[in-house]
Amino acid sequence: MYQCKGGAMVSNIRFPDVKPLSIDRYAKIVSTGIGLPKRIVTNQDIIDQYNIIASDRAVKFSLGIEERRWISEDESLEGLMADAVTQCLKRAKIEIDKVDKIIYSKLIGTYNIPSTSIGLLKKLKVEKGIPAFDITCACSGSVQAIDMALKSIAAGDDYVIVIGGGVTSDGIQRWKEPNPKTLFLFGDAITAVLLGYSNTKHFISSYMFTNHLLYENAFIPLGTTLLKEDRELDFDTFNMKVIDGNIVLESSVYNAKVIADKLLSESNLTLEDIDYFITSDQSTKIWEAQLDALNIPKEKSLSLFYKYGNTVASMSPLIFDELINTGKIKKGNRVMMMAHGAGATSGGLIFKY
Amino acid sequence: MYQCKGGAMVSNIRFPDVKPLSIDRYAKIVSTGIGLPKRIVTNQDIIDQYNIIASDRAVKFSLGIEERRWISEDESLEGLMADAVTQCLKRAKIEIDKVDKIIYSKLIGTYNIPSTSIGLLKKLKVEKGIPAFDITCACSGSVQAIDMALKSIAAGDDYVIVIGGGVTSDGIQRWKEPNPKTLFLFGDAITAVLLGYSNTKHFISSYMFTNHLLYENAFIPLGTTLLKEDRELDFDTFNMKVIDGNIVLESSVYNAKVIADKLLSESNLTLEDIDYFITSDQSTKIWEAQLDALNIPKEKSLSLFYKYGNTVASMSPLIFDELINTGKIKKGNRVMMMAHGAGATSGGLIFKY
Repeated sequence: MYQCKGGAMVSNIRFPDVKPLSIDRYAKIVSTGIGLPKRIVTNQDIIDQYNIIASDRAVKFSLGIEERRWISEDESLEGLMADAVTQCLKRAKIEIDKVDKIIYSKLIGTYNIPSTSIGLLKKLKVEKGIPAFDITCACSGSVQAIDMALKSIAAGDDYVIVIGGGVTSDGIQRWKEPNPKTLFLFGDAITAVLLGYSNTKHFISSYMFTNHLLYENAFIPLGTTLLKEDRELDFDTFNMKVIDGNIVLESSVYNAKVIADKLLSESNLTLEDIDYFITSDQSTKIWEAQLDALNIPKEKSLSLFYKYGNTVASMSPLIFDELINTGKIKKGNRVMMMAHGAGATSGGLIFKY
Repeated sequence: MYQCKGGAMVSNIRFPDVKPLSIDRYAKIVSTGIGLPKRIVTNQDIIDQYNIIASDRAVKFSLGIEERRWISEDESLEGLMADAVTQCLKRAKIEIDKVDKIIYSKLIGTYNIPSTSIGLLKKLKVEKGIPAFDITCACSGSVQAIDMALKSIAAGDDYVIVIGGGVTSDGIQRWKEPNPKTLFLFGDAITAVLLGYSNTKHFISSYMFTNHLLYENAFIPLGTTLLKEDRELDFDTFNMKVIDGNIVLESSVYNAKVIADKLLSESNLTLEDIDYFITSDQSTKIWEAQLDALNIPKEKSLSLFYKYGNTVASMSPLIFDELINTGKIKKGNRVMMMAHGAGATSGGLIFKY
């Protein structure tokens, strides 16, 4: 088994066993859609705007990022969600009235309560009172929500929409003294994935877990912790703090190996049986390290960090969407999709597209 | 059908059809547990502390509340969660290592990200990396999470813990100029409900929906809306704003009727077949109005608003826990449990205990 320092971080945690999916009413992924701000922000744009001592070349070299999308004044989180859902339903030729449930893996909502997924229903002027809620699951949220969606369909639902991602630049763009450690890393994006009933089996295995030893390694302070610390609301309270970036790298690699092992053993498959491997790319380096650890050739995967940055729960669905739209992933292909997020939570799925 | 002004609020919304639970791997509620702050705060305590022109008698008369629990300096949200989960597992004689998933319907988390349910795992020093996440679903969250939990069990899980409620007094207790409209209403509480595999059918029907026309009638501002309004962080940003309390009353009554109709028609049952009716009691008046509308005698229900106040997603599970512990609900009894929350979201279940 691949050894990395990540092993030390799980010394007191036993990961759960993988269980078979006990399902006889099947689900499949019907379509995907994305919602992106129109404005592309380059490294040079950020350097100029914040007067930072750096060069585009150095940022590119150290992080792998070239540009990202940031929201403009005339755009909104609910607007991006509406774009993603509208595209997703249009591709599926499904009216929103057919949808039985909406689950949004949010970053920061418009309000703390209610769910921003309800704001989406209002924005789209939907006439059906579709059950909708948000989950808090950082970067692994879309994978966790897809797992829930396929179980909802197993229990009788026909269509479920899973939304992921968010707007991180709301705070960043108002920052006076931005933190150069994270300023270049994040981008705004929303993804939608429509799951629907299928009479054949598409989802082969599913595996989720938590490593709560890493609870405070990466977090957004905007919660009651602000009250306890008597903190003022500054824009920094809306931004992800990363205490140790190496831990993010090492635990992503370690967790990718754990998930691949569990999913493959449950499915009686080997990595050679997987046509495409999708994982969250919190940086080009983190993506490459996961591929190296699993010995997966780059042609069987994709990173979009260079053009979108870290888009939290959108990362894996964005890659999936791009692989479909460029004709690489074809109907019938076997996909292993995983994602790793703050908390730390990880999850993975093997499915036939 | 019962008519109330609530009907006007849904004129542009069509509620979803109820669907049968297509499940052949059954779940049941195994046990419940609660976590309460030790400190009881009376109306008089609040009147004295904030120097408010009111009397205990007037507050009791107008709201129905006598006291509520507020957290002390040596208590925490994670601590209350740990108390509730520990009691729940102890009653079930189940070790936490047997639990496959934890879903927490949160109010305000300690952080925005990660989930506070992961903070619970850390607090309890759990050795298993149990998948855990929070959902945002206001007062109806425990019912929504129980619906998800029974579907997770249908798909192979053995035990799922659903946690609800939160600490609202964190902000209230730091308030200098409290809003007398909501100051007396809320209390701190956490509930845990353990669902487990059963070889017989317990959950008979389930129905959830949203009325997004009420998206902005009740909300906690702590989200990106603060940035857009260039608002400072004051303690008010941590508190629930209720724009129109009558709408909360009227929509709760209207939704109770919709849910009861849908659940009963799907189950081929009548209200006479239901042994206990549990619903969220955001005030004694709202609880009574639901019973009146459905013509349910008070002996078949319970309100705990007088001693706990509005405890958000804890309300229905607190009542359920009390009815079990006082020997009223017995094994085999048919329970209709529902809840209504900001958003607006509502949900209901019929199950055999």
